[in-house]
Amino acid sequence: MSKLLIVGTVAFDAIETPFGKTDVILGGAATYIALAASQFKVDAAIVSVVGDDFPKEHLDLLTSKGVDLSALEIIKGGKTFFWKGKYHNDLNSRDTLATELNVLADFIPKVAENYKDSDVLMLGNLHPSVQMSVINQMTSKPKLIVLDTMNFWMDNALPELLDVIKHIDVITINDEEARQLTGEYSLVKAAAKIQTMGPEYVVIKKGEHGALLFNDDNVFFAPALPLEEVFDPTGAGDTFAGGFVGYLTQTGNVSFSNLKNAIIHGSNLASFCVERFGTERLQNLKKKEVDKRLHQFTELTQFDIELQ
Amino acid sequence: MSKLLIVGTVAFDAIETPFGKTDVILGGAATYIALAASQFKVDAAIVSVVGDDFPKEHLDLLTSKGVDLSALEIIKGGKTFFWKGKYHNDLNSRDTLATELNVLADFIPKVAENYKDSDVLMLGNLHPSVQMSVINQMTSKPKLIVLDTMNFWMDNALPELLDVIKHIDVITINDEEARQLTGEYSLVKAAAKIQTMGPEYVVIKKGEHGALLFNDDNVFFAPALPLEEVFDPTGAGDTFAGGFVGYLTQTGNVSFSNLKNAIIHGSNLASFCVERFGTERLQNLKKKEVDKRLHQFTELTQFDIELQ
Repeated sequence: MSKLLIVGTVAFDAIETPFGKTDVILGGAATYIALAASQFKVDAAIVSVVGDDFPKEHLDLLTSKGVDLSALEIIKGGKTFFWKGKYHNDLNSRDTLATELNVLADFIPKVAENYKDSDVLMLGNLHPSVQMSVINQMTSKPKLIVLDTMNFWMDNALPELLDVIKHIDVITINDEEARQLTGEYSLVKAAAKIQTMGPEYVVIKKGEHGALLFNDDNVFFAPALPLEEVFDPTGAGDTFAGGFVGYLTQTGNVSFSNLKNAIIHGSNLASFCVERFGTERLQNLKKKEVDKRLHQFTELTQFDIELQ
Repeated sequence: MSKLLIVGTVAFDAIETPFGKTDVILGGAATYIALAASQFKVDAAIVSVVGDDFPKEHLDLLTSKGVDLSALEIIKGGKTFFWKGKYHNDLNSRDTLATELNVLADFIPKVAENYKDSDVLMLGNLHPSVQMSVINQMTSKPKLIVLDTMNFWMDNALPELLDVIKHIDVITINDEEARQLTGEYSLVKAAAKIQTMGPEYVVIKKGEHGALLFNDDNVFFAPALPLEEVFDPTGAGDTFAGGFVGYLTQTGNVSFSNLKNAIIHGSNLASFCVERFGTERLQNLKKKEVDKRLHQFTELTQFDIELQ
């Protein structure tokens, strides 16, 4: 099996939506990415850090999905990164009520020897210097380096962000962040500008409005599956990224047409994520359900016009 | 050729966008619908009203596209319906600066005898009683009746609107209006509720975020083509509707799978509409350009995943 190295947060979340609120539950970008990627035949490993308040059951969950945790550092006496947020009624916006970096504040990622030659490297949303230090530890160039980031780093670590994105192949970013990064309102223009900054492929996430993939003059669009109810959007973007890199790692094909497929797989898995709080839906997601929904995606988007 | 009967406004517009402003130019729902539908092999006619201030060149334009204007009433001494609007910077919202109903205030549509057996009836956005009176004039039931409406009629003529939509097959409505009509935030739930009100098919227009087609448990989604620049969104929804009914009239096939194709044709033509002010881009749109962009739509949306 091909190797997928995932760098990102492993965290505690507390979430409030119009439908209810959770206690402190399992969260973090790397967690969602790994759970989604574990739907594919890949050898996935997480590089991250938690405190020793992090329960064994969460570690066991990830291990049971085949995720290698040997580079998940557990800091004695440390507290795990904690995020608390409340979604507004339309679920399209949220207030962050608490962000406690805790052990993440001093995180220095250490890639395990046997993952330094990973086929795909997924850099989840973290300080761009941390993302860069992982790239620097790789002993062979991955077939694909995918980076996720957010507006916080554009505001607070722009030079470091601009540096790391010179070294990646794919960036995933949401629409507002693409506009902020480039000063272009048009997503077509924004994507073109981002491609000049480094990444050959630009994935622009539009939440409930789907995702766009840009590469030179090629554009591909995948909608989000229209759902009766979106319950909790937390982790949807990371689940999307996890499906994307999981599929690409499994297939080993990084052509534009296969990236299209990967976008669909990512969108498909994200559609499950939002149906329950946190990682609940991903934890016991069956291949049969995933395959069935892929059929729905096909029905949703495929048509048959005779072209001339 | 199959017959397409179009009811709607033929108007003067004055438009201001961040990119500039127009003088008084040709506008109106029926105008956009007819220009879009004229891309197909159909026998299209407009039922509408203008004043005698309406210039011959506009009439000649429509006639040159093969649109039958024998039921376009010209009121002597009357003034043509006038709309003036200004778009905000993101082009997603606008202020109406003037609405002068003029001859539209007393409009009583009269369907010409030879279009009372039209195959497809397109009811553009107008007072629901006017839309109903056209349905009542048909001597044979059209294969498909499509109705467009807006929030203004929900606020001011809801009983009449609820009455007319009992008699139609397809409603086109935007996302906010679907929510207003049903009290459901979820578009999936809103579409299901609207289907219980009459129309078998519900098309929800999401502007730059594409369009959804619902029928029972079937859903289809067409994105808007990502453009470098949207210049003027005026008429995009009507152009979409015109492409939709034009294609369905030409093919005569009103199955769900052909409605999918019609949605794509509508989206395709709408992508041209927004590239220039008003009807400018539609006025001299070549079949070659339309076909080429259909290929782009295919590239944009079609993928090739092996389903299991």
